Amino acid sequence: MILPRIGISLGDPGGIGPEVTLRALLESGHLPPARYILFGSREVLASELKALGRTDEFRPWSDDGEVREPGLFLREMAGPEGRNKKGAPEAALGRASFSWFEEAVAAARAGRLDAVVTAPISKLSWSMAGIPWRGHTEYLEQFYPDAVMSFWSDRLTVALLSHHLPLREALARVTPEALAGFFRIVYDGTAGKAGGGQVEILVAGLNPHAGENGLLGTEDRDIIGPAVAEARRAGLPVRGPISPDVVFRHAVGRPERIVAAMYHDQGLIPFKLTAFEDGVNVTLGLPFIRTSPDHGTAFDIAGITPADPGSMTEALRLAAALAASAPAGL
Amino acid sequence: MILPRIGISLGDPGGIGPEVTLRALLESGHLPPARYILFGSREVLASELKALGRTDEFRPWSDDGEVREPGLFLREMAGPEGRNKKGAPEAALGRASFSWFEEAVAAARAGRLDAVVTAPISKLSWSMAGIPWRGHTEYLEQFYPDAVMSFWSDRLTVALLSHHLPLREALARVTPEALAGFFRIVYDGTAGKAGGGQVEILVAGLNPHAGENGLLGTEDRDIIGPAVAEARRAGLPVRGPISPDVVFRHAVGRPERIVAAMYHDQGLIPFKLTAFEDGVNVTLGLPFIRTSPDHGTAFDIAGITPADPGSMTEALRLAAALAASAPAGL
Repeated sequence: MILPRIGISLGDPGGIGPEVTLRALLESGHLPPARYILFGSREVLASELKALGRTDEFRPWSDDGEVREPGLFLREMAGPEGRNKKGAPEAALGRASFSWFEEAVAAARAGRLDAVVTAPISKLSWSMAGIPWRGHTEYLEQFYPDAVMSFWSDRLTVALLSHHLPLREALARVTPEALAGFFRIVYDGTAGKAGGGQVEILVAGLNPHAGENGLLGTEDRDIIGPAVAEARRAGLPVRGPISPDVVFRHAVGRPERIVAAMYHDQGLIPFKLTAFEDGVNVTLGLPFIRTSPDHGTAFDIAGITPADPGSMTEALRLAAALAASAPAGL
Repeated sequence: MILPRIGISLGDPGGIGPEVTLRALLESGHLPPARYILFGSREVLASELKALGRTDEFRPWSDDGEVREPGLFLREMAGPEGRNKKGAPEAALGRASFSWFEEAVAAARAGRLDAVVTAPISKLSWSMAGIPWRGHTEYLEQFYPDAVMSFWSDRLTVALLSHHLPLREALARVTPEALAGFFRIVYDGTAGKAGGGQVEILVAGLNPHAGENGLLGTEDRDIIGPAVAEARRAGLPVRGPISPDVVFRHAVGRPERIVAAMYHDQGLIPFKLTAFEDGVNVTLGLPFIRTSPDHGTAFDIAGITPADPGSMTEALRLAAALAASAPAGL
């Protein structure tokens, strides 16, 4: 059996990223067999291990082709310069977390990883370090402009047509071309992977009651409806537009149903209400798997209160599962 | 003790309105003491009672000033002409359900009722009958243009800045003037009534992450934030704008917290996910109480499958509770 190779960037060392990563890998005890490769600095890991009262060692990672033995590896990289404390953003932390993430993505793009799992970075640290991207997804979009953000949990799975945009601009993204690509990417990224069976994509309307045939806005009738019909003719299992205040009720508890949401909050309001500790962010439309936990750096508790590794554990588990089910050649 | 006088319009006779009304009044067995007055036709009630296997009689309602004895009354009005069947919209049904509702509102406006509870009408029946209003709320708005739709359940209470508008137009309603009136009406309509204590109004942002200080849209920083500050200076317990994908989590299970939502689906997606059978629609900003169940005519099951009176029961219970707690003179 060939095992998936999963790279993990440790995230901002001032936040809970390194802690939840190590907790998930060392304490959860039931991750799928895979080769897990940490991208980060030995010092950051050593200090985190000490805080956890552990003495684990990580073998250095070398790109060794087909992997048949699971294990924990380290791709050692430089850490943040200077004295770094937990609990606040800092330029040095931004430079370090960005370089770890950048290297993991480069390895995945070169075909040396099947998946990348990203622990949370701080947008502020990145900005203080002069990193020109707002976050992981924006960095990935330079290579993969059609990438789609999706959110997975046991209760609900949603994909977003657009994400970090003012609502007014998000409305303008509802176009036939964007919807066609979106439906295709959501289908390719979930078929055979979500819900253990035939997926069905439920398309949320844009306007109240999905526009009531034009009475409450025309986009549902004139843009989304025809785009759904076109995707169905192309063989995609897509249905809608469905009234936004109803569609999520049809999908909750039905893991084979993916809701295609028309803007950030339409998908994330219901997702965050139903998924508490186990939400995972999955970027679709990349030539490799990318997952991340559905929380931030939590500077306020980092190093003070133990952080819950639940979402990171799910991100690792889902990355391994998706990488294992990915078609050969992906 | 002076009891509240609660008028009930029976709704579309082709839908489940008359059935859930009678079930709620006759079978739920634990409504607050009040004078409940049905606005509808004797024939519609007789046929519904027969289906329920009951032989109850309703005393004719006369406006008798202060009410000290509870009971069930009938304000008898003409029913739909012709042979009417359940299960589909029809002009005659629209004319009848509109006239019952209109009469109940007139009685409330004249001070002869403390509350009006409206069973569901069919917009299609109204439209076929040439009624120029889309629904109950639109009719009320001609008298009370600042009326606010709100939705109450044991789990969550939300109020909507705008309701049946295309999303694009709803964005344009986010103005300082509209927000000032909205916060005032929500406060006046819930203070001392929701959650049994000091209410707190949590204001949802408009843009993702409430705009991130202008990075993801300017309305949160430039319009909503100042409107919240202004309302606080006026003494209202208002807080926000809060990230839309977070604010509902802060309010679920906290009945003293009302979420002020910026558009229809922002409030109704989370409401309909968390409130299943017990959601109630409450119109705020009227000189009387108005509640209605959070479902439609359900033509598909009317007269075939027994209808669940849960939401109607809650609508009656909430109307009685709000009317009892309303300040004298309301």
